[in-house]
Amino acid sequence: MSTKSKVPVLPVSKNLTLGLFGFGVVGKGLYDVLQSTPALQASIKKICIKNEGKQRAISKDHFTTHASELLNDESINVIVELIDDADAAFAIVKEALQKGKAVVSANKKMIAAHFEELLYLQHEYNATFLYEGSCCASIPIIRNLEEYYDNDLLSSVKGIINGSTNYILTKIFEDNLSFKDALIQAQQLGFAESNPALDIEGHDAANKLSILLAHAFGSIASPSNFIYNGITGIKQSDAEVAKQKNLKVKLVATAQKINDNELAAFVLPQFVNSQDDLYNVINEFNGLVTESSFADKHFFKGKGAGAYPTAAAVLSDIAALRYSYKYEYKKYLQENKLTLSNNYYLKVFVSADNIDKINKDAFEWIEEWHNERGNCWVVGIIHAEKLIQSDWWKADGVSLILSQNAIIENVEYKKIGKMSLQLAGIS
Amino acid sequence: MSTKSKVPVLPVSKNLTLGLFGFGVVGKGLYDVLQSTPALQASIKKICIKNEGKQRAISKDHFTTHASELLNDESINVIVELIDDADAAFAIVKEALQKGKAVVSANKKMIAAHFEELLYLQHEYNATFLYEGSCCASIPIIRNLEEYYDNDLLSSVKGIINGSTNYILTKIFEDNLSFKDALIQAQQLGFAESNPALDIEGHDAANKLSILLAHAFGSIASPSNFIYNGITGIKQSDAEVAKQKNLKVKLVATAQKINDNELAAFVLPQFVNSQDDLYNVINEFNGLVTESSFADKHFFKGKGAGAYPTAAAVLSDIAALRYSYKYEYKKYLQENKLTLSNNYYLKVFVSADNIDKINKDAFEWIEEWHNERGNCWVVGIIHAEKLIQSDWWKADGVSLILSQNAIIENVEYKKIGKMSLQLAGIS
Repeated sequence: MSTKSKVPVLPVSKNLTLGLFGFGVVGKGLYDVLQSTPALQASIKKICIKNEGKQRAISKDHFTTHASELLNDESINVIVELIDDADAAFAIVKEALQKGKAVVSANKKMIAAHFEELLYLQHEYNATFLYEGSCCASIPIIRNLEEYYDNDLLSSVKGIINGSTNYILTKIFEDNLSFKDALIQAQQLGFAESNPALDIEGHDAANKLSILLAHAFGSIASPSNFIYNGITGIKQSDAEVAKQKNLKVKLVATAQKINDNELAAFVLPQFVNSQDDLYNVINEFNGLVTESSFADKHFFKGKGAGAYPTAAAVLSDIAALRYSYKYEYKKYLQENKLTLSNNYYLKVFVSADNIDKINKDAFEWIEEWHNERGNCWVVGIIHAEKLIQSDWWKADGVSLILSQNAIIENVEYKKIGKMSLQLAGIS
Repeated sequence: MSTKSKVPVLPVSKNLTLGLFGFGVVGKGLYDVLQSTPALQASIKKICIKNEGKQRAISKDHFTTHASELLNDESINVIVELIDDADAAFAIVKEALQKGKAVVSANKKMIAAHFEELLYLQHEYNATFLYEGSCCASIPIIRNLEEYYDNDLLSSVKGIINGSTNYILTKIFEDNLSFKDALIQAQQLGFAESNPALDIEGHDAANKLSILLAHAFGSIASPSNFIYNGITGIKQSDAEVAKQKNLKVKLVATAQKINDNELAAFVLPQFVNSQDDLYNVINEFNGLVTESSFADKHFFKGKGAGAYPTAAAVLSDIAALRYSYKYEYKKYLQENKLTLSNNYYLKVFVSADNIDKINKDAFEWIEEWHNERGNCWVVGIIHAEKLIQSDWWKADGVSLILSQNAIIENVEYKKIGKMSLQLAGIS
C-alpha cells in the first residue's frame, strides 16, 4: 500500500529541561510521576525550595534555595511552579515568562488574581503558560473548554470543583463525622490546602470558577465580582433536612448564561437530587456538567485533590509543551463577549439557630417559613445583588443552601414580592 | 499595564467552505447547527445526495447528485462526509484527501475498516482528517485520548459506546418493554443506524472500539481481531437475574492493558453494579471510564446518539480546522506499542433455553451451575481464545454476559481447570 518514504513519523518534539519550584505534596507527586514516564524525555534539572533544613525523600544536590539558579539557567526551558505562596509564585511565573520560558502551574489563587496580566505576559514575551491542574486537578477541563467548546453554543458549566470540601461533606453526610474530624481526615490525606480556610470558606472554588469563566465564556472576573461562600455554615440540622428529602448538599460552582449578553456566576452550597450527575460525585472527586445547545449535557468526573491527580494534570501540560500547545483564549479575544451580571434571582434555603439572624426583608418571596426554637428556616427567592451586598447570611449559626434549580427566570417575583410577604403574614 | 500594541489578537483562522455529503439525520442536524453558529464563519456551499426525488426541508438548489461537483470545486476546502454507505464514503474521503482537502467524518464503519490507509493518505497528501463524532457522538473522547492521555500511563478505557443498544437495554430493564418495541422506539427517535443489525449485533460498538484502540494505545486492529457481540441474545430471564442482584446489563466495550506489552479488547454485554459509573448511563447516553496510573479514574458522559449530539461533534471538528488542528497519532507512531492479545481469561455468565447449547468443555472452571427446564445457566471462567474461535455462545437462545470484573488475572485456572470440572461432577 505504501512505500517506505510514505511512512509517517512523529512530529519533532522539544526536549524539555525542567526547573521545579516547590517540593510539597504535588511537587513530590510530580517527581514520582516523571520517574515513571521515561518516554516523556523531560527531566528535572533543579528544584527550588524555601526551607533548606527539611528532611526530604531525595538527595540534597537536587535542591537549591536560590530562585535565580533556575530562572537564569538557559538550559532550563520549562518552569514548573508548585509553591503555596501566591505572591511569590506570581513573581516567579512573571520572571520566567519574561525570559521566554514556558511555565506550568497549578496555583489557582495566583492565576485568578493575575489572569489578565498573565495573558498579556504570554503575548508580549511569546511564552506559553499552561495550568490544567489548577481547576479540577486531574480532569482535563480547561483544554476541553478551549478546544471542544470552541463556539458560542455553551450555556452553562456547573460542578464540584473543590475536592477537600467534597470530601468533608461526604464524611459529614455519609459517615456522620463532625466537621472538625472530617477536616482533619482531609488534611491527613493531603486533600486540603495548607491553609484550610482557602477550601472551607470557598475561596479556592471561587478562584477556580474565575479561571473557568475565562476559558468557558471569555469573561475575566475575580471572586470579588460574584457571590461565593464555603461550607463552614453547614449544620447537622441541614444534613437532616437534606436526608429527609433524599437530597445531598454539595459545594457547587455555577457559570450560566442568563440572557444573550449576560452571565451569572456563583459558588454556594446546593441541594442536589439523585437525578443529578453531581449526586454521585463523592469523597475527593470533582465533577463538572457542561450544557450546550446541541451537544446537550456532558459530565466529567475525576479525582479533584491529592498529589498524584494534580501531578498527572501538570504532567499532561508538560507533555503538551513538547508539541508547542498553547491556550488561544479565543473566547476572551472575541468581540461579543458575555459580561458577568448580578441581576438575577436565586431560590434559597436559609437556616439559623435564631430566627432574628434571617433577614426576611432581603427576600422577594417566601415559600416556606419554619420557626422552631433553635431550628428555624426559610425557603424563598432572593435577588443576587442583595446577597453580594450583605453578609448576614454568612454569620455564625446561619447557612444558605441553594435549591436544586437555583436560578429563577421569572422576574415577576420582583413585582409581587413584597405583597406576597404581607399575604403570608410575615412582613 | 499594557499599551495598545501589546493587546493580543485572535490567531488568524481559515475561512471554511464546506461540501457536505449526505443529508440524513446527522447531515440535517449539522445544517441546523451551522445556521445557529454564524460566528464560526463556515458555510455549506453544496450538499451531495443520492436520491434527488426525496422531499427535503430546504430548497433544491442546495443539492446535487454529482460528487465531482464538490470534489472538483477548488473553493471547497472542507469535505464533510455523513453518508451511510461505508464503501462509497471511503471513495469520497480518499479522493478528497488526495486533493488536499480537509475531511470531517462520523463514519465509524468506514474509518475502522480503512484506518491505516486513511492514516497514510493524511500523511502523503498533507491533509487533515478529523472524526470526533465517530466514537461517542458528542463526547470529546478522541481528542482527550490524543492530547491529555499523551503518555504511557493509560491502563484502560471502558465504556458504553453505542447509544442505540443502551436505549434498548434501558427500556427493556426499566420500562419492561419487549426487545422489538424498544428497538422501534430507538429507530423512531433517530438513535439507531438505518440498518439496526449494525447496532444490536455489536458491529457499531466494535468499529468504535477499533478507533479508540488506535487513539488510546496506538494499536490498530479491526473488529475481526477481538471478541465482540451485541445484545440480541439478552433474554427477560437475564434481566431478572440482574435485578435480583441489583445489577444492570450494559453493552460494554473494553480495552485494557494485561501486561507491559499486551492489550485485551472486547465488546460484550456485562453486569454492572451501582458503584460503577456506567450504571447511571441510561437511555441514549454514552459513558467512558479511563484509568491511568496517576490520574486514576476519569468518567466522561454525554449523549451518544441522535442528530444534534453527533452534529455537535462534527461542528467541533470543523471549528478545530480553522486553527489547523490535526491528530498526531503519537501512540501509533511510537516504537514500543502494545499489541492486541487474546491470551487472557474472562469470568462469564452464560444462560440458555437448553443446557445442551452450553459448551461446558470450553470452560476452565465452573463456579455455578443451574439446570432448570427452559432456564439454564453457568458461571465460569473461559479463555478468550476459546470464545473468539467458536460461536456456540452466539446461538439462538444463548446469552453470554461478562461479570462486573471480567478479566481474571490468575492464570492458575488453566492448570486446575479440567480437574475442577471433574470434582464438580460436571465433566
